[in-house]
Formats: sequence, C-alpha cells, structure tokens
Amino acid sequence: MATDSRLDEVLERLDAGLSGAVERLRTFLRIPSISTDPAFAADVRAAANWLRDELADLGFDAAVMDTPGHPMVVARTPAGEGRSLLFYGHYDVQPVDPLELWNRPPFDPAVEDTPNGPVIRGRGAADDKGQLMTFVEACRAWKAVHGALPPGLILLFEGEEESGSTNLQPFLRENAGMLRADLALICDTNMYSDGRPAITTQLRGLLGEEIVVRAADRDLHSGSFGGLAANPIQVLVNALATVKDAEGRVTLPGFYDGAPELTDELRADWQALGFDPAEFLSRVGLHEPIGEKGRTGLEMVWNRPTFEINGIAGGYAGEGFKTVLPAEARAKVSCRLVGTQDTDAIREALRAHVRAHVPADCTVEFHAHGNSQASVMDTSDPAFAAAKAALTAEWGREAAFIGAGGSIPVAGDFKRLLGMDTMLIGFGRDDDRIHSPNEKYDVQSFAKGARSWARILAALA
Amino acid sequence: MATDSRLDEVLERLDAGLSGAVERLRTFLRIPSISTDPAFAADVRAAANWLRDELADLGFDAAVMDTPGHPMVVARTPAGEGRSLLFYGHYDVQPVDPLELWNRPPFDPAVEDTPNGPVIRGRGAADDKGQLMTFVEACRAWKAVHGALPPGLILLFEGEEESGSTNLQPFLRENAGMLRADLALICDTNMYSDGRPAITTQLRGLLGEEIVVRAADRDLHSGSFGGLAANPIQVLVNALATVKDAEGRVTLPGFYDGAPELTDELRADWQALGFDPAEFLSRVGLHEPIGEKGRTGLEMVWNRPTFEINGIAGGYAGEGFKTVLPAEARAKVSCRLVGTQDTDAIREALRAHVRAHVPADCTVEFHAHGNSQASVMDTSDPAFAAAKAALTAEWGREAAFIGAGGSIPVAGDFKRLLGMDTMLIGFGRDDDRIHSPNEKYDVQSFAKGARSWARILAALA
Repeated sequence: MATDSRLDEVLERLDAGLSGAVERLRTFLRIPSISTDPAFAADVRAAANWLRDELADLGFDAAVMDTPGHPMVVARTPAGEGRSLLFYGHYDVQPVDPLELWNRPPFDPAVEDTPNGPVIRGRGAADDKGQLMTFVEACRAWKAVHGALPPGLILLFEGEEESGSTNLQPFLRENAGMLRADLALICDTNMYSDGRPAITTQLRGLLGEEIVVRAADRDLHSGSFGGLAANPIQVLVNALATVKDAEGRVTLPGFYDGAPELTDELRADWQALGFDPAEFLSRVGLHEPIGEKGRTGLEMVWNRPTFEINGIAGGYAGEGFKTVLPAEARAKVSCRLVGTQDTDAIREALRAHVRAHVPADCTVEFHAHGNSQASVMDTSDPAFAAAKAALTAEWGREAAFIGAGGSIPVAGDFKRLLGMDTMLIGFGRDDDRIHSPNEKYDVQSFAKGARSWARILAALA
Repeated sequence: MATDSRLDEVLERLDAGLSGAVERLRTFLRIPSISTDPAFAADVRAAANWLRDELADLGFDAAVMDTPGHPMVVARTPAGEGRSLLFYGHYDVQPVDPLELWNRPPFDPAVEDTPNGPVIRGRGAADDKGQLMTFVEACRAWKAVHGALPPGLILLFEGEEESGSTNLQPFLRENAGMLRADLALICDTNMYSDGRPAITTQLRGLLGEEIVVRAADRDLHSGSFGGLAANPIQVLVNALATVKDAEGRVTLPGFYDGAPELTDELRADWQALGFDPAEFLSRVGLHEPIGEKGRTGLEMVWNRPTFEINGIAGGYAGEGFKTVLPAEARAKVSCRLVGTQDTDAIREALRAHVRAHVPADCTVEFHAHGNSQASVMDTSDPAFAAAKAALTAEWGREAAFIGAGGSIPVAGDFKRLLGMDTMLIGFGRDDDRIHSPNEKYDVQSFAKGARSWARILAALA
C-alpha cells in the first residue's frame, strides 16, 4: 500500500505538471531533426544535445555518443535491486514534404483543439518525440516524489530510426555491456484503438530497395527515337507490375518461406478485437481491402508479408508536357516481412526478377535501404502480464496483445545482439498521420502515456 | 533552255551575293525573338517588323498581322498562271539557357570556320531563321534576274512556333481565303544526312495524355496500411505495363486501325538510304532497337506508331527512403501516330485500358496534352518529282523521300484547314544543335539551300 500511495503521488504530480510537459515537448518539436536529409544534420545533433541536457538536469548520467552517422543519446541511473530496464526511443523525424499540405509549419508545433480533444500538431509529435517524452516525464515525476530516479534504468535515444538505423547495430554491438538490461521497453507504437491500450508482441520486418534503370546517355526526343530506343520508365514499370499476381500474392521464388500461419490462440485473440477493415480504411477515404485474397484484415497488416512501391520517378513530370525518352527511371520499393522470412534471400530474388526484365541496352543499379527481420516476443515473461495489468488500470479497459504491421527493427536487434526481449507499449492513435502532413499526438496520449509508464515502473520495480 | 539559262543566272546571282545574304541573316539573328518568354515580346515583334520590311523592299505585298499572341508576317506576290505556293517558316527562337554553355553570345552571331566548313553560329541560325532566309534570298535573286518576283507566292512566317503555336489554327481558319494555295512549302527540317537532300513526305502525329491515379485521401505508412490499402503507384504501373505486349506491339483495341504498311516503292526507297539503327543508337550510348519485332529501324521511327511513358512520379523519390503508400501517382504518356490513326479513338481506348486496371478504391483522372494527326503527303503530285529532281541537280546526290518521327503540326493544319499538301524541304544537319547551346547553320546549307529553292521555283513555275 505504501507503493500505491507513492504511485498516486507520482500520478498527481504528472497531472499537475502537464502544461509544463507540453511546453517541453513543443521545444523539442521545434528542432527539425530530419535524419534522412543531410541538410538537417546540425538540427539532428541539436535535438540530441537538447535531450542530453534535459536528462542530465533530471539527474541521469547522460551523454551524446557519436556514430559514423547521427549520434545516440544514452542516459543511465545507478543499478538497483530489481529488474534493469532499457528504454528506447528515437529523436529523429520524417521529412515534411509535401509542405503545402500542412495547415501549419511542421516545426512550429501548437496545441490545437479538435472534436476529439486537444492535440499537439507538428512533425514528430507522435513519431517519436511525443512518445519518448512520456517516459521522460514519468521519470521526472517519479524523481519529484521519490527524491531519486528509478534505479537500473538505461535510456537509449537514436537519431537514425527514420533513415534506416544504419549505425544502430554496430553501436549495440560495441556498447553491449553498457546497454544490456533484463528487459527492453519501446514507446513507438499505437494503442489498439482509441482508449484500448496494447502491448505489441510481434512486428513485421522490412526490406527496402532502390532500383535505377538507365538507357541512353542523355534524354532523347521521342519524335527522333521513339519506337527504336529503350525507355527506362517502361522497363521499370514492366518489372514492377509483375512482382505480384492478380490475387495479390508476391511471385518471387521462395518469398513465403518462413512466413508462419497464426496460432489458433492468437487467431482467436485477434478475432476478439473485432477489427473491421472497411471501417479502418474508411478513415483514410478507402473502403475495400486490396491485399491477398482469403486473409482477414488483421492478418494482412500484422501477419502477412507485402511488396509495395513507395516511390517512382522518371522523365518529365512537371507542368505541361515534354515528349522525352528519359535517360533513367528509378523506384523505391519495400517488403514488410513476417516470422523468419530471410531478408537477404528475398532481396536477391527481387533483384533477379528485375534483372530479367532489363533489355540489353539498359543497365540496372540496386541500392539496399533497410533490412530488418520480423520480431516475435515471448509473452510468457511475467513482465508482460504486469504491464498489461498496469495499462488496464490506467485506461480502464483490458489491454490487448497485438501485432504491428510496421517494422521496429531495434526490437529484433535487442533480442539478437543483447539477448533482451522487448515490450512495445505506445500511445499513438491511428489518425496521428505519422509520416504524413499534419502529424499530431493527442494530449490525452501524452498525459495518460506518462501516467502509464509511472504505473509500469511501479509494477516492475 | 530559256528557262535553264535564266535559272543559271539566278544561281550565279545567289553565289555572287552570298556574303550580303549572310550579313542580312546576321542582322536578323541579332534580334532575340524568344517567343516563350514574355520579357522578349518586343523583340519578337521587332523580328516580325524586320522581316516585313525586307519583304516589302523586295516588292512583296507584306504585312505584320496581329494575333492574341505574337504576330504573323504575311507577304504575297500577284497571282500568276502556274501553281500557287504558300511558303511557311517561323521567326521566333528557343530560349538560350544554359547561357554558360555557349561559346559566344547567342544573339551576336558570327561566321566561324570549323573542320566541316564555315558555319553561322547563333540562336535561330538553323531553327528557323537561316532556313526561312534561304527562300527569301532565292526570291531576291529571282527578282534581280527576272525583274519581278515569282508570281503566286504567299509567305507566312509565324512567331509562336517555339511556344506551342497557340494562335496558328485560328489564324489559318480566319484567313483561309488569303492563305490557301495549290501547295505548301516548309523549310524547317533536316537533310537525310550531310549532303543528301530530302523531301519529308510523312510526319507522325502525336497524342499526349496525363494520367493521375488517386487512392487514400493522404499518404499512408506502409507499416500500418501495407497489405490492406490500395497503392496508386502499383495501380498505375499495372496499367502502363500492359499497354504493350512482349513483342513491343500496343495492345489497345483498334490501335493499329489506319496505320498503313509501307508501299513497296517507299520500302525500296528507305532501304536504299542504308540506315543503320545500331550506328544511329550508338550516338546516344545505345545499340539495340527495342521497338516492334520484325520492323526495320526507319519503319520504327517513321512509319510505326508508338506508346511511350514520358514521365512518371509518385511517392517519395528523394534522397534516402520513405515507406509511404502515396495518395496519388501520375504519368505522362504519348503516342506517335501514323497514317490515318484516329487520335480521339486511341485516346479513348487508352483511357478505357487504364480504367480497367483501377480498383474500386482508386479514382483516375485524365488530362489531354496535344493531339495532332499524322500527315502523309500525296507524292503523286508531279511537284514532288519536280522538286526531287531540282534537289538532286543542286546537291549532286539523289534526293530522298523520307519520313519524320516527330510532329510538325502546321503541315497537318495546312491539310485539314486549307486543303493543301505540303513539301517539307530543309537543309538542317543533325549536328546543328537546335534548341541547345551553340546552335549553328552551315554556310553550305544556307548557300545551297537558297540555290535549291531557286531551282524548285523554276521547276514549279
């Protein structure tokens, strides 16, 4: 009961300090830490420095640690008697284009009232600055009440999550001794639905690939060369149109090796969630699932692999018209992967498929972007049940074990390189518009997220 | 023989007056008549006025006639007994950027010696001021010898050819009575090869179309929606990949209706040109024709219709990677058309093909860009044989009837609006760099071009 009353104090402290916490988040969001664009490198570092200073002020032993790319922020508290915990988040954000679709400057965040309550609007509000700050604010309130930070904490904040996490694996390897804990916590996921908290227990992997097809050594006039000279856009289009069949299945040889069917137990759990694909799609102006035939909606997004074209460019696409046969065309494609699908084998199969479509007069070049295996957690660890109870208490609704269609490769890296399982607990909403214009994070997610972490810290302490 | 001796006098007069003719061309070239840039509107008009004054001095009934855009110059001689002829050229020029790639100011033309003989260097030297002046200089010499200009001539010089010829069709319609002649002559094309004169007797038409496929009402994260939501890039790619089959033939129903096979005569003529597709392609870093199977290289570029993707854009194609399912994807495509292919019917077939690939959750929008029928001249008109003989006599090599892969819409306009066939006779070279920095026109093209017109005028008189 002593613990419970201290917890209540921490929760009260969080409630009382909410407006200050929102102001701190706004300050953090003003730093345009776009990791994929080299023009923003200094801003990425500025965001790392800001985080380190915040954490050091709170009493963490905090440092910005360089990598060959953007730096890591690492902060620790002294070891305690209980379970040690590594909390991971990322302080970098996605690019903001198309800028004209934002209804306010993406790096001038504000609290806006909406019919669903107040939101914090700005790039990174949900992904992941707002989410990671829920944990930092829980620590701040904890310290105010307990006089000290929770023991045995390691905080790790990455600056390259949105640009492929190029340096994460080497960093984990080189600093394994410092980073290894009993369990990892990641706050970069959504609740199952508004008001229904969740712990994500499986994540799809990701394989990204850029394909560049080149033909003539210059742009050609289609009047002079059309009908005779190779058109790299057509070559690329022909290759990309045949990766999937009419049933939505990927045709690459061996693609489905290692893609498991659901266990009966998980199938029943997911069924109970009552997911309605048409309703889900209607939120973004769609209504018909277009994926593999014969699969439920949740299977499609959580337990089935995909192939998607994420970007394509070639020739003249501006105002008016230009009858050009371009010298090159390029596409960015990616696969979401599940179970034990082998990213290297699939990448090779994809490249072989494209090469088979490239005629003698064209060349093709491939660039790998991102490569992460899927992750499946061991939910028999009692920490999962304890966290589930804490979340259920905070939100007043039964917390769910769910899957995630996105890739959080770091969870797989923690398992493989540091031997830790991960609890993925996040407070994002499906309408947060992450990676899109007008990204937001609900003030409720932010406030109750911090309260949730306070409860989980208390439960695991 | 009387005619022949007067022709010889005209040719001698041209030879004797060459340096004066070059000086007049240089004066004309100094006027920066860039039609696409409103900043040069006064210069475009100055070029029109200069031409009118030259023609009036020569004895033409010449006028600058306003349009809603840049003006036309029209000049006439009294009707005669023989065939009436409309000569068309354009006095506007392309922009000059990138200026730093010019080795002299583009509007300070000069005669330069080169390993292939002297050239006149400057914007518009070949396209089209130098070419149109070959006809004007032939008229000047004719008048000096005969005491009068050739009868039954109409000269029409346009000032918007390089900016879309927006006002040409209305002008032709409104002034049809004044402009209609027995035959049109256009000097805006190349010789078949250096030293081999040619009359272009067929031109491909053009149909341009922009296709926009839209899915969700915003860009989506492929982790959250991949496998469930429609991807407009994939939809567009699937539609574009199936417009042509593996043999390079367009699959749209009715596409080849009106696309004629070569006559035996034209097939033999083209065969005699000795076109080497591999050599032609090697100039741009390619070597293998990729068009329809079973067609010669010249057929592919002159007598076969095409489907080309000129531009495509969708999703994220910048630096790095973004796992987005974009809200929309767009492509610009065009067909080169031959014979009597029906542009409207083909546009509808293309749109129907695309629509058939668009799933329930996507919409598609089409925008027409450009629509010109192919032109095929009736070479049984004895004027063609007469002009061929005249060109053969001047150049000492058999003149060829050739095709052109590009579109010169004015020739189709003359046919459709004024009921005239056109002889396209030009003296440009493949290395004239029209539309590019360091445009030039060979002094030989200029001198022998004028002599060629003198011979053709004599033959058609």
